[in-house]
Amino acid sequence: MLNETEYRIKDLSLAPQGMKRINWAKAHMPIMQSLMIRLEKEQPFKGLTISICLHVEAKTGVWIEALTKGGAKIAITGSPGSTQDETAAALVEYYGAQVFSQRAEDFADHINYCKEILRVGPDIIADNGADLHELILTDPEFSHLQTKILGATEETTTGANRLREDFSANLWPTLVINDTQAKRIIENRYGVGSSVVESIAHATNVMIHGKKVVVIGYGYCGSGVAQRFRGMGAHVTVVETNPLTRLEAHLEGFYTAQLSDAIPDADFVVSVVGRDNVLTAKDFLLMKDKVIIANAGHFQREVDVEALNELAEYKEEIIPKINLYQLKNKKQLYLMSDANLVNLSAGNGNPIEVMDLGLALQTLSLERIALASQSLAKIPQPVPYDIEMAVAELACDNWINH
Amino acid sequence: MLNETEYRIKDLSLAPQGMKRINWAKAHMPIMQSLMIRLEKEQPFKGLTISICLHVEAKTGVWIEALTKGGAKIAITGSPGSTQDETAAALVEYYGAQVFSQRAEDFADHINYCKEILRVGPDIIADNGADLHELILTDPEFSHLQTKILGATEETTTGANRLREDFSANLWPTLVINDTQAKRIIENRYGVGSSVVESIAHATNVMIHGKKVVVIGYGYCGSGVAQRFRGMGAHVTVVETNPLTRLEAHLEGFYTAQLSDAIPDADFVVSVVGRDNVLTAKDFLLMKDKVIIANAGHFQREVDVEALNELAEYKEEIIPKINLYQLKNKKQLYLMSDANLVNLSAGNGNPIEVMDLGLALQTLSLERIALASQSLAKIPQPVPYDIEMAVAELACDNWINH
Amino acid sequence: MLNETEYRIKDLSLAPQGMKRINWAKAHMPIMQSLMIRLEKEQPFKGLTISICLHVEAKTGVWIEALTKGGAKIAITGSPGSTQDETAAALVEYYGAQVFSQRAEDFADHINYCKEILRVGPDIIADNGADLHELILTDPEFSHLQTKILGATEETTTGANRLREDFSANLWPTLVINDTQAKRIIENRYGVGSSVVESIAHATNVMIHGKKVVVIGYGYCGSGVAQRFRGMGAHVTVVETNPLTRLEAHLEGFYTAQLSDAIPDADFVVSVVGRDNVLTAKDFLLMKDKVIIANAGHFQREVDVEALNELAEYKEEIIPKINLYQLKNKKQLYLMSDANLVNLSAGNGNPIEVMDLGLALQTLSLERIALASQSLAKIPQPVPYDIEMAVAELACDNWINH
Amino acid sequence: MLNETEYRIKDLSLAPQGMKRINWAKAHMPIMQSLMIRLEKEQPFKGLTISICLHVEAKTGVWIEALTKGGAKIAITGSPGSTQDETAAALVEYYGAQVFSQRAEDFADHINYCKEILRVGPDIIADNGADLHELILTDPEFSHLQTKILGATEETTTGANRLREDFSANLWPTLVINDTQAKRIIENRYGVGSSVVESIAHATNVMIHGKKVVVIGYGYCGSGVAQRFRGMGAHVTVVETNPLTRLEAHLEGFYTAQLSDAIPDADFVVSVVGRDNVLTAKDFLLMKDKVIIANAGHFQREVDVEALNELAEYKEEIIPKINLYQLKNKKQLYLMSDANLVNLSAGNGNPIEVMDLGLALQTLSLERIALASQSLAKIPQPVPYDIEMAVAELACDNWINH
Repeated sequence: MLNETEYRIKDLSLAPQGMKRINWAKAHMPIMQSLMIRLEKEQPFKGLTISICLHVEAKTGVWIEALTKGGAKIAITGSPGSTQDETAAALVEYYGAQVFSQRAEDFADHINYCKEILRVGPDIIADNGADLHELILTDPEFSHLQTKILGATEETTTGANRLREDFSANLWPTLVINDTQAKRIIENRYGVGSSVVESIAHATNVMIHGKKVVVIGYGYCGSGVAQRFRGMGAHVTVVETNPLTRLEAHLEGFYTAQLSDAIPDADFVVSVVGRDNVLTAKDFLLMKDKVIIANAGHFQREVDVEALNELAEYKEEIIPKINLYQLKNKKQLYLMSDANLVNLSAGNGNPIEVMDLGLALQTLSLERIALASQSLAKIPQPVPYDIEMAVAELACDNWINH
Repeated sequence: MLNETEYRIKDLSLAPQGMKRINWAKAHMPIMQSLMIRLEKEQPFKGLTISICLHVEAKTGVWIEALTKGGAKIAITGSPGSTQDETAAALVEYYGAQVFSQRAEDFADHINYCKEILRVGPDIIADNGADLHELILTDPEFSHLQTKILGATEETTTGANRLREDFSANLWPTLVINDTQAKRIIENRYGVGSSVVESIAHATNVMIHGKKVVVIGYGYCGSGVAQRFRGMGAHVTVVETNPLTRLEAHLEGFYTAQLSDAIPDADFVVSVVGRDNVLTAKDFLLMKDKVIIANAGHFQREVDVEALNELAEYKEEIIPKINLYQLKNKKQLYLMSDANLVNLSAGNGNPIEVMDLGLALQTLSLERIALASQSLAKIPQPVPYDIEMAVAELACDNWINH
Repeated sequence: MLNETEYRIKDLSLAPQGMKRINWAKAHMPIMQSLMIRLEKEQPFKGLTISICLHVEAKTGVWIEALTKGGAKIAITGSPGSTQDETAAALVEYYGAQVFSQRAEDFADHINYCKEILRVGPDIIADNGADLHELILTDPEFSHLQTKILGATEETTTGANRLREDFSANLWPTLVINDTQAKRIIENRYGVGSSVVESIAHATNVMIHGKKVVVIGYGYCGSGVAQRFRGMGAHVTVVETNPLTRLEAHLEGFYTAQLSDAIPDADFVVSVVGRDNVLTAKDFLLMKDKVIIANAGHFQREVDVEALNELAEYKEEIIPKINLYQLKNKKQLYLMSDANLVNLSAGNGNPIEVMDLGLALQTLSLERIALASQSLAKIPQPVPYDIEMAVAELACDNWINH
Repeated sequence: MLNETEYRIKDLSLAPQGMKRINWAKAHMPIMQSLMIRLEKEQPFKGLTISICLHVEAKTGVWIEALTKGGAKIAITGSPGSTQDETAAALVEYYGAQVFSQRAEDFADHINYCKEILRVGPDIIADNGADLHELILTDPEFSHLQTKILGATEETTTGANRLREDFSANLWPTLVINDTQAKRIIENRYGVGSSVVESIAHATNVMIHGKKVVVIGYGYCGSGVAQRFRGMGAHVTVVETNPLTRLEAHLEGFYTAQLSDAIPDADFVVSVVGRDNVLTAKDFLLMKDKVIIANAGHFQREVDVEALNELAEYKEEIIPKINLYQLKNKKQLYLMSDANLVNLSAGNGNPIEVMDLGLALQTLSLERIALASQSLAKIPQPVPYDIEMAVAELACDNWINH
């Protein structure tokens, strides 16, 4: 058992409760279950310490279990605001992981916790947004790690872009998890597609059948969202500016239209584009009374909330997750979750299976670094193709043929 | 404003909060909105008192608003356990309705509240399960009402059956709301279909795509559930004993099988049959480890929970709404909401629009009784066909052509 | 082998060719195959002669095989214009059926052939449009049959209506095949639905994906047609005057509109209503240049072809099955198959399986008459419920569990 | 009018009939219609001769009309066996095109015709399979064209591969039409997907609803075929060896399996893989009695027909387009069209719109060569991206917003 200086969490007594959630997640993560068995036998991480920055929640807990069974010593911190305190407790209590994370932490706390998990002297880091990379590459306290680190994973494309743009050189191989076709299909098309529709239906209690839904964007996420709305009986119009992609939506059976033609009729407007200011003042003014607006794209900035505030006479939270904006033209618009990603903020986020696959990519990437980091170039790079295929194969074996 | 003896609710100060919820519901009840306008003008309920027994929640609040605008004086009680205290407060505060209802009430309280709303001396009753009918027909305190009552509505088929079987004679016309094709299609196929899938996805956070789902029963509800699961990417197998209905499911593109052949492979088993003991001990023993079981049929008894308890070594609530049963054969089964109707108990119940239509049937039925009760036979009977068509017409006007 | 006076067909040497087609049909008629085995063993028709009026084509051939194996002696005639001469030859050559039928026959020939098959002195008749009934009930030559006939089947609802309306009394039980829920689902929704879409795609070679299709009528046939067009990627708008049925289409995810609002945008207009003059002059004038019009309803009269001719400057057959009408407003309209039922006239009619089920209903109905006609009232009546269920059961056994 | 030495066709008197078919096609080729108007005005091909090798059929006729309106002089030959003689006549009669093509020609004729159309001394060639390229690059008679030719198009990927592999150098830019994302989506997923299902339904007259269909391959074509079968009510199992693609099919809601597990249950087996010997002797032996086999992949060789012949006791054409093979194990297998591409050989090929888009790519590619061949490298290369986008834009304008 760790002593009390080796972790910083809210309340260790929450551990049993946290373990229940981890077990629920684990029951639906058969890929990670099968990896655990192999890792426990092969001990690829034996003698290695891994410092991790990733959401401290039940699914991550399953991953920590797998890594520790594979011989790793773990130090972990989460992201500000997303830590589940009971999961944190379970990780300390049952896996001996050094957890530095609490739900109520602010960004300064977060950086302090990042430092704590680097102080354990990792051999490998698993980063999320490049915060750990930055500390090692810029903070003298951690410069000694520059030669120790075997390699890293980075969860996000944004983090990988920071590495490429902001730091002159990477000193080890960094495998970027999100830049895989596997995640694009499983997470974007199917995970996001279904969780967006489910979140909106759940939070609003409005019937989807027969509703006019405008889906803006028809990429992996957008086509998934459009398909799922249709699967629930909605009348979907797709807005897409790339003519070839628009053609694809049209032939798939969706109505397609220009944004300004589609909006006035819509009961729901869902933005899934991935760039800023998709919905702006002129769009809000075209909308029908009682329209429901949600963002399922990349950032809150996809909806120009500031402009909406300016157009409004008043706003109020009418039910949880939904603000009513009364415009000066007397129409009432409903904005979900302040335009934050609707499946995360008004729902439960991605289904468990998305993380089963994503964390398997993480696990095999870490294993490659542990066993063969010298075979990899010292740059940010996609997950090796053979790992992506291996994970897809595991998904076929464990999701389909079981 | 009513004085304090004229209502019994939890806390009048909750009224503004209750009004917000009523307004959210109202925004998605355009049929009721349009009826309100006409009723306010025509005053069909002028001088009449209506005593109502129906769930005291936001959607019902919209109905009370419509009836009071139409000239009615209202006394209302809810059902044990389902009362929203803030809605109750809003009804008293903003509509002057005499509400006798609190969330924490037990069945004895409920009957007392029923008596209170009869003491106001109604001209018309709107019943739910025939409790008000029973009091008037059997309790001497209310026998004077037997000649006063112009007529009634009864929400449920169960209540109508009680009227026909348990009481020698009805003394006024009673229009049965649920026995309409309109409710069967809108509520059963579309309302239940989508809310069951959404509730299960939300409560479990499990991906529906690619999951093997066994849907037992392919009636209005069952076919709706099967269609929506398929619309979310599930692999659905339908179990149905009527050969013609099974053929329909087969030609619609669903796999069909005997229950015992379908169960061993299932990730989800959802019972939507409407009779007792659809799933029993022998079925639980066939199930796969980690299967998730839900009931979307009529009563909890559709799943033999007692037998499941006997088969289990232990059970625990693993996450809210879901109990894990560890069977003696070492398999783990997950039962949602103790086999209570999954869309009501693990989700938000039917979408708002189902009640928009259902309460419109109520409203026009009450109006018919107010204006022309003598044209109706003094028996329990379906809602007159012209009312059903009028409501469908209103739905077309307000849901489609808006 | 029959002698040459006992049949009248085009060319006996076509028999081997006809047998090939019968065998192809039989390969896809497992219900009839299974019935054949039982009938051959039980010989319910032993000593009985059955006179049949039904299309002489390959699927009917399979039925004749089953009846003769069951002990029946068969005399058969077809309908004007639909006889396959090679099937006729095979029935004579291989089953000893007395066939009176040729493709080129006119209506006078048809009645003569009906008389021929009555001259063999049937015990049972299988009628199609009530022509055989009429001869026996009104022509003195056949009045002696009035007491001999045990009973009859009648394929069509139209024939059954003639029996009820035009003849004062039926003298034997007549079982009406088309008035069954089984046929409504299998034939109308699935058989017609798919064959209409396939026929239009095949005859026009136009891509269905992305096309705006207006389907008029949302009954069993219409909803099937709408579903299949959607399944092929079309953008479907449903026109339906019954508000409750319209609501169903709307919630199922279809756009719905008034005819005059839907037509101007349509690439295809398909009428599936079942009454006269659904599409008339005012509708043709609203249509878009190059629209394709088809009828999948009941009779050609559903489209007012005469009015179309009057509106046209000229018409010509532009490709087989499709006439171009150049209207005086300079728009070009394309009418398929002169508004005859498009799946029959421009395609191959219903899929084989529809007849597998329909002829099984015929067979069990004839068997009931052969074995227990005295148990049936002497009126036109639906196929007994137990027969319908038995056929559905056979379909489940032979279509699904094979 | 051309004199008789300037063309070689079957029968000039067929021209009016050919023009009808061209007009039918043109009515459904709005992109080509809109291009015609612009080309007629701008005359980009003025003074240029284009020699074309492409199927001489109605849709090609629309293209020839567009090119001649744009100022080109045309010489054209078709492919052995696919020439529509009436189209050939119309091209001579109404557009003055020098057509050398007849339906009954053999491969030697074909090469002779290719020479004829080169003898007119083209400035540009539009090739199909690289036959024209080969003649110019290898036959001394045409070596003088090597310096005259401005550039070329090549319809097929196979032709482009021959150019790259078999000829040391290309002497002009060759734009490869089929290597575009636009064709992949429109032709492969939607065109092939729907025409395969329609062809099989039409040729067999078998009901698709409820049938077990095994689709082998889940690329652009295969996923389209799988989707359309599902859209017609089939129960589809996908066989796909790439694990990530298999996962996609699984999450999309399809059953997936190994070939040997899927085959024994199948009513239909459709190969859409694009490589040789997908279905071989061991597979045929696993198949169910009465299975229907079709190829929708690339070449006939996808099905090992020779092996099937060896396994068979006898074979016969049972209905047009379908051979019955009676195996020694007594099972009967049905092979469609001798394993030739089923949508071409048993149906009408791709829908007209596929060629509207494909010929627009051809037209704009030829225009680029006419106006700016010097801007292009002298190698086989994809259609420039701006042309692909321009065609997609035209499709949006003319297919959607009309």
